Amino acid sequence: MTEFTAPLRTGDMPVPEFRENGRAVLEWIASYLDSVGDRPVLPPVRPGDILNRLPAEMPEKPEPFDAILGDFDGLIAPGVTHWNHPGFFAYFPSCASGPGILGEFLAAALGVNAMLWRTSPAATELERRVLEWLAGLVGLPGTFRGILYDTASVSTLHAIAAAREACGLPLRTEGLAGSRPLNLYASELAHSSVEKAAICLGVGSSNLRKIPADELGRMDAGALAAEIRRDRSEGRVPFCVVATIGTTSVTSVDPVKEIAGLCRSENLWLHVDAAYAGAAAALPELRDRFDGWDQADSIVLNPHKWLFTPMDCSAFFTRRPEVLRAAFSLVPEYLKSGEDEDNLMDYGIQLGRRFRALKLWFVLRYFGREGIQARLREHIRIARHFAGWVDEHPDFERTAPAPFSTVCFRAAPEGVPEESLDELNRRLLDSVNGTGEILLSHTRYRGQFCLRLSVGNIRTEERHAHDAWALIQHALTKLKGTAPGAGAIERSAAGS
Amino acid sequence: MTEFTAPLRTGDMPVPEFRENGRAVLEWIASYLDSVGDRPVLPPVRPGDILNRLPAEMPEKPEPFDAILGDFDGLIAPGVTHWNHPGFFAYFPSCASGPGILGEFLAAALGVNAMLWRTSPAATELERRVLEWLAGLVGLPGTFRGILYDTASVSTLHAIAAAREACGLPLRTEGLAGSRPLNLYASELAHSSVEKAAICLGVGSSNLRKIPADELGRMDAGALAAEIRRDRSEGRVPFCVVATIGTTSVTSVDPVKEIAGLCRSENLWLHVDAAYAGAAAALPELRDRFDGWDQADSIVLNPHKWLFTPMDCSAFFTRRPEVLRAAFSLVPEYLKSGEDEDNLMDYGIQLGRRFRALKLWFVLRYFGREGIQARLREHIRIARHFAGWVDEHPDFERTAPAPFSTVCFRAAPEGVPEESLDELNRRLLDSVNGTGEILLSHTRYRGQFCLRLSVGNIRTEERHAHDAWALIQHALTKLKGTAPGAGAIERSAAGS
Repeated sequence: MTEFTAPLRTGDMPVPEFRENGRAVLEWIASYLDSVGDRPVLPPVRPGDILNRLPAEMPEKPEPFDAILGDFDGLIAPGVTHWNHPGFFAYFPSCASGPGILGEFLAAALGVNAMLWRTSPAATELERRVLEWLAGLVGLPGTFRGILYDTASVSTLHAIAAAREACGLPLRTEGLAGSRPLNLYASELAHSSVEKAAICLGVGSSNLRKIPADELGRMDAGALAAEIRRDRSEGRVPFCVVATIGTTSVTSVDPVKEIAGLCRSENLWLHVDAAYAGAAAALPELRDRFDGWDQADSIVLNPHKWLFTPMDCSAFFTRRPEVLRAAFSLVPEYLKSGEDEDNLMDYGIQLGRRFRALKLWFVLRYFGREGIQARLREHIRIARHFAGWVDEHPDFERTAPAPFSTVCFRAAPEGVPEESLDELNRRLLDSVNGTGEILLSHTRYRGQFCLRLSVGNIRTEERHAHDAWALIQHALTKLKGTAPGAGAIERSAAGS
Repeated sequence: MTEFTAPLRTGDMPVPEFRENGRAVLEWIASYLDSVGDRPVLPPVRPGDILNRLPAEMPEKPEPFDAILGDFDGLIAPGVTHWNHPGFFAYFPSCASGPGILGEFLAAALGVNAMLWRTSPAATELERRVLEWLAGLVGLPGTFRGILYDTASVSTLHAIAAAREACGLPLRTEGLAGSRPLNLYASELAHSSVEKAAICLGVGSSNLRKIPADELGRMDAGALAAEIRRDRSEGRVPFCVVATIGTTSVTSVDPVKEIAGLCRSENLWLHVDAAYAGAAAALPELRDRFDGWDQADSIVLNPHKWLFTPMDCSAFFTRRPEVLRAAFSLVPEYLKSGEDEDNLMDYGIQLGRRFRALKLWFVLRYFGREGIQARLREHIRIARHFAGWVDEHPDFERTAPAPFSTVCFRAAPEGVPEESLDELNRRLLDSVNGTGEILLSHTRYRGQFCLRLSVGNIRTEERHAHDAWALIQHALTKLKGTAPGAGAIERSAAGS
């Protein structure tokens, strides 16, 4: 009789409210996608700016959705780096296409965990099929079995773990203590995730042999063979080679076919890191860069890099899924399902598995093979144009070949001594990135600090590369203006 | 003059089309959330049903979005297991709340990779703050630093890797080969991810000491101390203990405070796996179950389990972030950023990092502390009711205490001999799950096959548990009817 309080709601956001809030979010996203190019790529915030504007404690009471979305718009969105900006040329671009975003929205709503076949048959079976599609798109034979992980770092970790399992020692049960040292090989230009995997797996970073690259950035296969022989002669256990098609620094291509032959004769697992460049194998005219990769034991290729699929989505292919399974399968009673079907949790570290195949399926169908190819060709064409502009300009030079869509270059104006060029280019990079119009990244290659412009964002058109080039030239002119003469640049650099 | 073809579109889905397609997707989701309880929890499909209806190759030409969404609706959605169904009581439920889904939609649209502070300042800083909120919600002191990974398996892997780093041997560089064997300790009821981590890290599964649990499912701290002493006396290197608050089988709670004291005196890293139950620490009246966890070196708690956040979102807390960093930081030139700020890639295996904090921020704000607490209390109340119904029924018995929201029980009707009960309960499980009305899972505990009913889905109300209980009783009656008398059940089991 004395209870006048409304019944406490303990369920979810009511569906009518979800519909209304969903419309507001959709409208926010549509207008964001429409105008992302008008935002600064790199937000003009300093460390702590956002943190300090966020309350130190969570709210006691429920907050209206409007208020949350309002803060997202006013505080969060202005503080993100816009990977979807057409002027995003840094690292390897990762972008969210319309069909990819909508596929992810549906996956979030379903919220399935595809650890077992029975915990989502459609997620398990679509993952299988969509990876067969992807293998077909890039010309891999049907002997490769695909699985999705979150990132290339994790795919590569799984590859090296499978390689370790394949070497025939009782490492799964006994661990590495007491075994002979294992050796892993990769080019000095291989991605840092290879070394991280060596650390994580207990192999140790010093047991990763970093093989020298030649003047075109390709792993020296002769040096690789010599290192393997030397390690064997010292009683060590070579077990894996990681070759790269499209190194992160300069997108160089290791001689995979030759390395594959060596791995065969030495009985080593060959993992090919094609996280970025693998997408380009969809183009018959670029297929020669992938010569021999079909002889690899495993391959990683990230649809969230150059296939317009939102983070995260890394495709791992292997001809030896049974080895991967032997490395990772572990089924406690509470996960026994009675089904003989493939339970994807058996193939990896992660028990929980999001429905990542859905967004990839949306992307591949929405664009189709021809649509994907057209977009990749356009990116490569834009990058070649950019490379040509660099080549033709007396104040700039390219610092590496550009076999895909990434151009490495630097300013090297006449009269500026070599020892001042690193600092000049560092300042050039800061200057163009500070405009908020574009974002480039850098690398150090053959001793030189150089700029990287990588074309991979679906919203990037030739005009954006053209604008970037104008901006870079203008910034160099200004730098030369503020520091006329080589000596002044040098002094300025030394003092900064 | 002869070019009549339309210019090839190489960009993204045009924004007006995105808006229209987005409305269709939103409407699909809203009506799905409205009616998910009418779908079968476990889809009535056989292995291969979906795979065989998916074309073997990807389309050549772009397909209209309508067609893709139509196939999603007609082929994929009927083949998923509905984790959002209010009758989903299996494993530990993971569900997608409205604010969580909308937060994930925004994260997919932004598509940022928060590997470095500069690659998305807001993602890095919001992650920090929202984990401070979460720590505050569950009563952890400010000395814990949080980071988000994808799954508890990965969080636990990072914990044990940090523990390995902390043991003072040069394992990062030299690897484990040649070192003394390392030992890791966990209860026999610990999650399988602990053993997977031991395998992955090169420690070896046989070097995981599975400590017996007592009659309440708690790790025997005396046996733990004895094992550690024995290993040390044999020249081995104990380095880590994993204690569990809420074991997967039966949600039992290890004596964390006692174990923490032992770890301190033995100088071992203590990791607490509270992936499921950690959320319950938001309730002051349940805080005693977490006694001592603030003395752990690291803790995992999954918002994608019992905090209404869509897969994937695993919160990792550590008092020793500098050790985690020492284990994993590796910065190649192309990722050097010049900022001294925390770059989250330094704290883990994965370089790519989705903006997972966004959905968690949405969830925590939309419900508020009181809203979260009300929902958790309601789930616990429902589970206690269910446990009471089991206790009162002569044909059923509980097989473990239910300290949180998970009830373990079995049918044990009078007259059915103990040796037939496993098969009877297996058939009971298949029978209720076959209705599509609910989904339970099972475990084996103290030699008995038992059913698990776990309440954690935000859409689950008392009436759903009530319906589940009616269904279970009805199914048992039918099983008894088709096989009257214990002997018949036994024969039927033997023949199946």
